[in-house]
Amino acid sequence: MSTTNNNNSKYVPGLEGIIGAQTAISMVDGANGRLVYQGYVIADLAQEMSFEEVAFLLWEGRLPNRGELDALSAELAGSRELTDAARATLAALPVDTDPMDVLRSVVSVQGVEHRLAQPTRPLAIRATASFPTILATFYRRQKGLEPVEPRRDLGHAANYLHMMNGREASPEIVRALNTYLVLLADHGMNASTFTARVIASTESDLISCLVGANGALKGPAHGGAPSAVIEQHEEIRQAGDPETYMRDMRKRKERFMGFGHRVYRVYDPRAKILKEMCQRMNPTFFELAVRIEEIALKILHEEHPERPQSTNVEFYSAGVLQAIGLPKEYFTPTFAASRVAGWSAHVLEQAAHNRIIRPQSEYIGPETRKPVPLAERG
Amino acid sequence: MSTTNNNNSKYVPGLEGIIGAQTAISMVDGANGRLVYQGYVIADLAQEMSFEEVAFLLWEGRLPNRGELDALSAELAGSRELTDAARATLAALPVDTDPMDVLRSVVSVQGVEHRLAQPTRPLAIRATASFPTILATFYRRQKGLEPVEPRRDLGHAANYLHMMNGREASPEIVRALNTYLVLLADHGMNASTFTARVIASTESDLISCLVGANGALKGPAHGGAPSAVIEQHEEIRQAGDPETYMRDMRKRKERFMGFGHRVYRVYDPRAKILKEMCQRMNPTFFELAVRIEEIALKILHEEHPERPQSTNVEFYSAGVLQAIGLPKEYFTPTFAASRVAGWSAHVLEQAAHNRIIRPQSEYIGPETRKPVPLAERG
Repeated sequence: MSTTNNNNSKYVPGLEGIIGAQTAISMVDGANGRLVYQGYVIADLAQEMSFEEVAFLLWEGRLPNRGELDALSAELAGSRELTDAARATLAALPVDTDPMDVLRSVVSVQGVEHRLAQPTRPLAIRATASFPTILATFYRRQKGLEPVEPRRDLGHAANYLHMMNGREASPEIVRALNTYLVLLADHGMNASTFTARVIASTESDLISCLVGANGALKGPAHGGAPSAVIEQHEEIRQAGDPETYMRDMRKRKERFMGFGHRVYRVYDPRAKILKEMCQRMNPTFFELAVRIEEIALKILHEEHPERPQSTNVEFYSAGVLQAIGLPKEYFTPTFAASRVAGWSAHVLEQAAHNRIIRPQSEYIGPETRKPVPLAERG
Repeated sequence: MSTTNNNNSKYVPGLEGIIGAQTAISMVDGANGRLVYQGYVIADLAQEMSFEEVAFLLWEGRLPNRGELDALSAELAGSRELTDAARATLAALPVDTDPMDVLRSVVSVQGVEHRLAQPTRPLAIRATASFPTILATFYRRQKGLEPVEPRRDLGHAANYLHMMNGREASPEIVRALNTYLVLLADHGMNASTFTARVIASTESDLISCLVGANGALKGPAHGGAPSAVIEQHEEIRQAGDPETYMRDMRKRKERFMGFGHRVYRVYDPRAKILKEMCQRMNPTFFELAVRIEEIALKILHEEHPERPQSTNVEFYSAGVLQAIGLPKEYFTPTFAASRVAGWSAHVLEQAAHNRIIRPQSEYIGPETRKPVPLAERG
């Protein structure tokens, strides 16, 4: 059938290998297992930098000096309060709502505008600041607890844990969450970032981009897997012999959660760091996880020796987030609370060099036909 | 700089000419000025079919018989009520909120789930049914009026107008809105539909797809233009001589609203139908509109004789929606209330033949560098 225009392009499912955007924000060097933010290799940032510092880097293209970092930290800390409408929505949602749907809804409500606003860094700061407050407020409602007010004297990671738990977390735990937030903050092109850029390309507002991106991240083929990693881990733990059980899983066509990535051909550099953290922080999880990893990679290689197989970022992040004390329903939302920095950076970049992202489609439907009147249809 | 993988694809800004999806749902035949839904030319559907009939067509790939149409109409009519959480959100949003932001927020709230659900036709029906109720409820709140309950005995278009105005619209007006809803219900690939498909490709839920698509439609480069058409029209009316004023507009680098489309090389078939409707229903608007159209096309041709120029669907839809009695802030949301049928159809199609839509990016950022410690940054 005809396509919508006359060029000779061929349909590539999933746009695999097609360049969807040019970006200075990050680079996924799949061949060498490197993730680079604005020229900095992730391993050089993960243990040293605060989330605030990395957010500045993603938004501005360079690391902040002390004054700039203090200013950004203060601006983030000062933007954590929710609007009345956001609070009302958080109070009205069914208490068993998926926290990703809470985030989608309340980020939207928190960001409503009277007239279309251009994406700006102050708006990115406000949105980024609001994610932990939204999540913690709803989490506490689910537990029947009063919300904890944000604390301006705490950094982004520390304040999130304080609002969740009503007490300060240990420096080790704060540091671990901070590292997680840094590691996940951007990742070249991916379905949620691409979603944000497509929406931005229509000259829409930042919040519309973030809400769309959040919806994409929710999918189990993207960011929705880490809670499934924990569930599968528990399932395998209870099953007895992991290898027998995992081979049975494949017979039932079940997917191993936390494996495979379109870009990395070697070990995901984020997974490497998270694996070390997991070993230190969550030895019980880790012991079984390495066994599962080994078996999964073996089985996947047997099934598809031609495909490179690798452990992805979600496999060990589940163990780290569990050790941090986050409930599994909040794993993907916490991923979103990190990635919002990258999404915003991409929206700002797209808006600065915009062209509407509007691919063609190839029509594969029926040939042209005349409608039969309703009364004559069988 | 290196791209994220080793293929030789070249970056095409905006993915222009790249095929983003295969679809049986609709075809935009730009060369011949035809829009086809599942094999039916839009001109054969626009005046004859109800929105319900066309929604069935988009979702099922064929026209319904009488029994199927009655069943779908009843299901839509029975799904118009809002949840308590949606009502609470509508009551809590600032009264001057952009109705597109209301839609983004309340469609999300109305559709929250406890666990991820696969996209299905019943969910598409529920979502489609809710758009007019959300819009009318908020519109009446803005006017200080009580909401009007949906009426099951009225069709989709008639009930929308009844809920907005608190009285039944004339058959001519209902028919005009129905035609508008049919004309705008799908349009091959476009930024909002593509957004919906990218989100669906992560195996996310239908509502996340629709909320993302709504955010893309909001952009002035996509569906956000019709209220701007009205504003520009009024501006030109007040200015005196249209041609002088419009030439001055171009000197100020202002864009003529309602012109240009990436695909059509001849008159947009929807614009043709809407133009005829506009002439009949809104002669005052029409008289100036044809003059503006003529001058705009002339000036645009002078500036870029090499580019095909054409009037797009938004130019005359503004006049039609005005004649229907909708306030201009509700033009784009009403577009969304139509397009939700197409978005849902695309999500169902994407979910049925899925591969994650994840293009690459081309890195254009700094070369790899080592971070300078915070204390040493200037």
